[in-house]
Amino acid sequence: MSRPPGEPADRRWMQRALVLAEKGRDTVAPNPMVGAVVVRDGKVVGEGYHREAGQEHAEVLALRAAGDRARGATLYVNLEPCCHVEKRTPPCTEAIVQAGVARVVVAMRDPNPRVFGRGLERLAGQRLDVSEGLFAARAFEQNRGFSSLIRQGRPYVTLKGAMSLDGKIATSTGDSQWISGSRSLAYAHRLRRDHDAILVGISTAMKDDPRLTNRLPGSRSHQPARVILDSTGRLPPDSRLFGEEGGGPVFLVAGPRAPERSLRQLEKSGARILVLPEVRTGEIDLRALLAVLAEEGLLTVLVEGGSRVNASFLAAGLVDRIRVVLAPLLIGGTDAIGWLGGASPPTLARARRLPGFSVIRRLGDDLLVGADFWGPNSLPGPEHPRETAPDQMPGRS
Amino acid sequence: MSRPPGEPADRRWMQRALVLAEKGRDTVAPNPMVGAVVVRDGKVVGEGYHREAGQEHAEVLALRAAGDRARGATLYVNLEPCCHVEKRTPPCTEAIVQAGVARVVVAMRDPNPRVFGRGLERLAGQRLDVSEGLFAARAFEQNRGFSSLIRQGRPYVTLKGAMSLDGKIATSTGDSQWISGSRSLAYAHRLRRDHDAILVGISTAMKDDPRLTNRLPGSRSHQPARVILDSTGRLPPDSRLFGEEGGGPVFLVAGPRAPERSLRQLEKSGARILVLPEVRTGEIDLRALLAVLAEEGLLTVLVEGGSRVNASFLAAGLVDRIRVVLAPLLIGGTDAIGWLGGASPPTLARARRLPGFSVIRRLGDDLLVGADFWGPNSLPGPEHPRETAPDQMPGRS
Repeated sequence: MSRPPGEPADRRWMQRALVLAEKGRDTVAPNPMVGAVVVRDGKVVGEGYHREAGQEHAEVLALRAAGDRARGATLYVNLEPCCHVEKRTPPCTEAIVQAGVARVVVAMRDPNPRVFGRGLERLAGQRLDVSEGLFAARAFEQNRGFSSLIRQGRPYVTLKGAMSLDGKIATSTGDSQWISGSRSLAYAHRLRRDHDAILVGISTAMKDDPRLTNRLPGSRSHQPARVILDSTGRLPPDSRLFGEEGGGPVFLVAGPRAPERSLRQLEKSGARILVLPEVRTGEIDLRALLAVLAEEGLLTVLVEGGSRVNASFLAAGLVDRIRVVLAPLLIGGTDAIGWLGGASPPTLARARRLPGFSVIRRLGDDLLVGADFWGPNSLPGPEHPRETAPDQMPGRS
Repeated sequence: MSRPPGEPADRRWMQRALVLAEKGRDTVAPNPMVGAVVVRDGKVVGEGYHREAGQEHAEVLALRAAGDRARGATLYVNLEPCCHVEKRTPPCTEAIVQAGVARVVVAMRDPNPRVFGRGLERLAGQRLDVSEGLFAARAFEQNRGFSSLIRQGRPYVTLKGAMSLDGKIATSTGDSQWISGSRSLAYAHRLRRDHDAILVGISTAMKDDPRLTNRLPGSRSHQPARVILDSTGRLPPDSRLFGEEGGGPVFLVAGPRAPERSLRQLEKSGARILVLPEVRTGEIDLRALLAVLAEEGLLTVLVEGGSRVNASFLAAGLVDRIRVVLAPLLIGGTDAIGWLGGASPPTLARARRLPGFSVIRRLGDDLLVGADFWGPNSLPGPEHPRETAPDQMPGRS
């Protein structure tokens, strides 16, 4: 298979495929977002996107729209076409070959171990000109939830924090507004827009009374679900989360000890109540929670603190990447509140080492630093699939 | 006065002046390091540097070496030539005019408020072509100790730390080796080389038993003085600081309560003992200490921790810049040891705000972040000199 094509035309049409794929965002889970564009003689002759599980794939829709004009054309698709048969729709690779497409450009492989590279091999074996890797990072970003679900069996989790250069999120008295600047605030809203759900602990929800909405100008139509960890059901039913401000649905996650009466009241305020087991008193089983969120189609989760919730996600090994905003500020003090609470590991060897910094960039006066535990490079090749029982896995159907 | 000249020849000769100035490093305090180069027709016709207080200035030495060849020549000097008369040597501006120099290029103004711009004005008034600002940052770096002494009345202080991304320098059990990587270690040694003194608290000195030497290959000849804050004289007389490894002199800074016997023993091991007042029990008066270090010709001080010492310097307003290495590691925990100890401010408004990040750069897998409280831009113009009694100020003599 050839290297990623870099021609301006290829870039243009792949960007179009990525935009088309995006149209499925709110309906397609647990399937991936896929967009396809058929181009002949520099003109689009067919396009399509995948709307929801069980419905036709983007490639098939685009080829149908193109009809005979698909012969000798180039197909652009953000995700490798499927080649597996044990599902509701026939494999796209066959449709592509039969339509007479001459060239196929994909952004990334289908992370489904039953496909991962085999779709491309199948096309190349039929003498189609096949290439992969154009806008691969953007394609992974778009389908990181699906990729995580099919490979890790859970949603993709981003841990986000805004802190002073010395790692504090509040003074000893809890003063925390504002540590970071306006550019960082805009970034925080972009992050919210790019996630299916935002998650905070009850302390944060009660202290700050946040709305947890995406307030980014021009994109307020996408509102992530709001997930509150509240093992004893303490959230006031009149908190701003239930205000008339058009935020996403509120999931209140309680433990088995939460009083039924409180939960019923919160439900009346508009919360969806999830009662989940605790791993120890006051600590919800996060893995079980993520499984429930996946069932709700929430495949990308942004954890926004506080200190204890952040530490619990890290300790459970449930963080795929971190994004940290460092403000030009020193709070200091052994009594100030740090970004990561809980107990420290006894030795450095048991501290959590990051696989390098993947992002280092100024945000106004602040500094954004990121690290990715699990990303596009975490996808193993088809020769070394993870130990997963295929029949327990989600997949495009 | 014209803008900084950028011609390759100008850059070359100013670099030569900076290198010459460096020759005075170990002898010139409390005067600044100054180097001068006289160039005519593309050739050096005279050079000089200032060796020590009371001896001739670099400009005078360079002009004398040039003799008649100075006529119509260009003079490169890292610091603005002096124009004030109330000192042991005659003003350099007069010597430059009399030698018939046609053009003068300086890197930075003399921070001495009695000169600051007036030397350049005097030369321009005599129709010399005068420009300033070439390699200004490097020139400030070289003479930051002198600049701080003459403007702030104390040495220039850099606070350095190496920590996890979440601001921790050790786990709860004190495990701290190693947080940062090899590139950061080399950077730490470069920092040591570039300072007159390194300062640590007794806890750090006892826990790590450090040598506090510059172990940078090729530059071990410069060894900074080692200053240990040890109010009760607890440092073991057999610590590695007193080993045969060629480090700089050890200054043991004790408080009034330190037992005479311990101090005498430490003196026998080779320490210089400084007994200083405490501002409260166990806390040496840092301002008084810096005054003593200045008298010893130690004009640049690198504070290397631990947590409590770092916090004390910051709280006292005695830090001019910080250099922080962030390692790709999360330690977490409310019990881990943070970079800045002490007590946190009650409100964010009273936290220490940094004037932005002046340095953001990768060091291997680590990230170096810097901020400058006091730097070249902190030098006020001659129209707005700081309130300082001129006769109490040091200056070139």
